[in-house]
Amino acid sequence: MSTSTALLLADLTGVAVFAASGASAAVAKRLDLFGVVFVGFVAALGGGIFRDLAIGEVPPLAFADWRYAATAALTAVAVFWLHPQLARLRTTVLVLDAAGLGLFTVTGTVKALEAQVPAVGACVIGMLTAIGGGLGRDLLTGEIPVVLRREIYAVAALAGAVAVVVLDLLDRAGAVPLTVATLLVFGLRLIALRRRWSAPVAMLRPPSTGPT
Amino acid sequence: MSTSTALLLADLTGVAVFAASGASAAVAKRLDLFGVVFVGFVAALGGGIFRDLAIGEVPPLAFADWRYAATAALTAVAVFWLHPQLARLRTTVLVLDAAGLGLFTVTGTVKALEAQVPAVGACVIGMLTAIGGGLGRDLLTGEIPVVLRREIYAVAALAGAVAVVVLDLLDRAGAVPLTVATLLVFGLRLIALRRRWSAPVAMLRPPSTGPT
Amino acid sequence: MSTSTALLLADLTGVAVFAASGASAAVAKRLDLFGVVFVGFVAALGGGIFRDLAIGEVPPLAFADWRYAATAALTAVAVFWLHPQLARLRTTVLVLDAAGLGLFTVTGTVKALEAQVPAVGACVIGMLTAIGGGLGRDLLTGEIPVVLRREIYAVAALAGAVAVVVLDLLDRAGAVPLTVATLLVFGLRLIALRRRWSAPVAMLRPPSTGPT
Repeated sequence: MSTSTALLLADLTGVAVFAASGASAAVAKRLDLFGVVFVGFVAALGGGIFRDLAIGEVPPLAFADWRYAATAALTAVAVFWLHPQLARLRTTVLVLDAAGLGLFTVTGTVKALEAQVPAVGACVIGMLTAIGGGLGRDLLTGEIPVVLRREIYAVAALAGAVAVVVLDLLDRAGAVPLTVATLLVFGLRLIALRRRWSAPVAMLRPPSTGPT
Repeated sequence: MSTSTALLLADLTGVAVFAASGASAAVAKRLDLFGVVFVGFVAALGGGIFRDLAIGEVPPLAFADWRYAATAALTAVAVFWLHPQLARLRTTVLVLDAAGLGLFTVTGTVKALEAQVPAVGACVIGMLTAIGGGLGRDLLTGEIPVVLRREIYAVAALAGAVAVVVLDLLDRAGAVPLTVATLLVFGLRLIALRRRWSAPVAMLRPPSTGPT
Repeated sequence: MSTSTALLLADLTGVAVFAASGASAAVAKRLDLFGVVFVGFVAALGGGIFRDLAIGEVPPLAFADWRYAATAALTAVAVFWLHPQLARLRTTVLVLDAAGLGLFTVTGTVKALEAQVPAVGACVIGMLTAIGGGLGRDLLTGEIPVVLRREIYAVAALAGAVAVVVLDLLDRAGAVPLTVATLLVFGLRLIALRRRWSAPVAMLRPPSTGPT
C-alpha cells in the first residue's frame, strides 16, 4: 500500500468516525434526516475544509474528491437508521472518535507542513483540523463546544501536532514515526477518558482567606 | 439581456430576498439597526462568500462588487423601518425566499462547475451557497439552524444542484434549462411549504412492542 | 521605527487586547484552561484569519507568523491565572478593547486596499477584521454576539474603515493620517461607552394610536 493510499484510508476512517459523532448529536436534537446528514457532514469535513482554505488548497478536498462527501453522508444515514443500536455502542464510538482525533491531527499537520506553513502555525492548523468538525457540530446543535469544556481532547491533538512538527524538523516524518504520533494522540485521549483527566478550570470565587 | 447581466440580476434578487429574511429575524430578536443590517448582510452574502472561498475566487464577489453589499444593506434598512408592514406580507416573504433559494442554488452550482469543481463537490457547494446565509443568520441569532429542522428546504436546493450538474454533464446548461432548474427548486420548496412536507425524523423512543 | 514594525506592533497590541477579552469571557463561562486559550485565540485572531482568507493571503498571518499565536496564547494564559485582579480593571479592559478596535480596523482596511479590494469591500473587510474575533468569541460561548446588540461598536469600526478608504483615494494614507483614523475609532468607541450611545432598535409593537 502506497503512502498516499494509506493517508487516504486514514482520512476516510476519520471522516466516517466523525460523521457518526455528528449524526448522533443531531439525532439527539431531533433533527430531520437532512439535518442529521448535514451535521454529520460538518463534523466529518469541517475541520478539513478549514485546513484547506487556510493552506490555499482550493477547492478543499471535501469538495474535490467525492469519496469524502460520500463517506460522510453514508455514515450519517446509517446512524440515522441504526442509532438505537449505536447507543449501546457508546464506548466503541468514544474509542473510534479518539482514533479519528489522532488520524486528523497527523494528516492535518503533515498537509500544513507540505504547504510550507511554519512550525507553530502547522501545529495550530493540525489541531484545528482535528477539532474543527466537532466545533462546527456543537455550534450547529446549539451547544457550547464540548472540546472547550471537557477533558483532555484538543490538548491531545496539540501534543500530536507538536510531535509531527518535531519529527519533520528532524527529517524523520516517515510512515512509522507518523503512526506513532497518531497512536500518541489516540492513547492520550483514551487515558484521559479513562481517568477523567481535565485541564484545570479557573476559580471564579477564590476561597476567602480571612475570617468571615 | 446578456447571460452575465441575467446572472447578475438573478443574484441581486436573491441577495435582496435573503437580506430581508435575515433582517426580519434580527428585528424579532430586538437587535439594533447595525445588528439588523449585519444579520441581513450575512444572510444575503454568507453563502456566496463561502462559495467563493471554496472555489478560490478572492476577494469574494460580495467584497469585489459593491452592488452586492449595497443591495443587502439597503434591503435590511428598509426592513428595519418597514417591518410592521412586512409582517402582514409573511406569505410574500416565504415565496420570495423560495425564489432566492432557487436562484442561489443554480448560480452557486454553475460557478463551482466553472471553477472545475467535480460533480459531487459542485452539488454540495451549490446547496451550501443557497443555505449558507440562512445558517449564518440562525447562528448569529442564537437558533439551531431552521434549515436543519424544518420542512424540505436544503433538499430542494440539493435537487436543483444535481439537476444543474446533470445538465452540465449533458452539455445542456444553457439559459433555458438553468431557468427550469431554478423553477424546480422554487416549485419543490413551495409545494413543501403548502403540504408541510418534512424530511423524516429519527425515533428516539421506538414504540414498545410488548404489553406495558 | 519602520512602518512595517509599527504595523506589527499595532497588530500585536490588538491581538493581546482581544485575547484578553476572549479569555475573560471564557473564564466567566467556566471553560477549562484549554478552552480559555482557544477562545482567546479566536477572539484575537479570528478577524484577521477571515480577512486573510478573503484577500487570498494564505496561510493567514495568524498561522504564518508565530508571534501572533504566541501573543494570543500567552495573554490568555495570563488572564486565566490573573483574572480576579483583572475584574477590578474592567475599565482598563474596555479602554484597551477600544484601542484594539481602532488598530484592527485600520490595519484590516489597509491590507484589503493593498490586496486591490475595491473601496466598499475594503470597508466591510476592515470592519469585519475588527469585529470578527468578538463574533467568534460570542458564538463559541453561546451568546448572541454583543456587537449586534450593544452600543456603538461596529459602527465606530465602519467609520474608521471609511476614513481609511477616503484617505487612500486622496492618496494620503500615510502614518499620521492612519494614526488619526485609529484614534477616530478609539474616540468614537470611548464616547459611546461614556454616553451609553446605541444604534436605534426597531419598535416591535408600535404604540396603539386609538382607544383600546
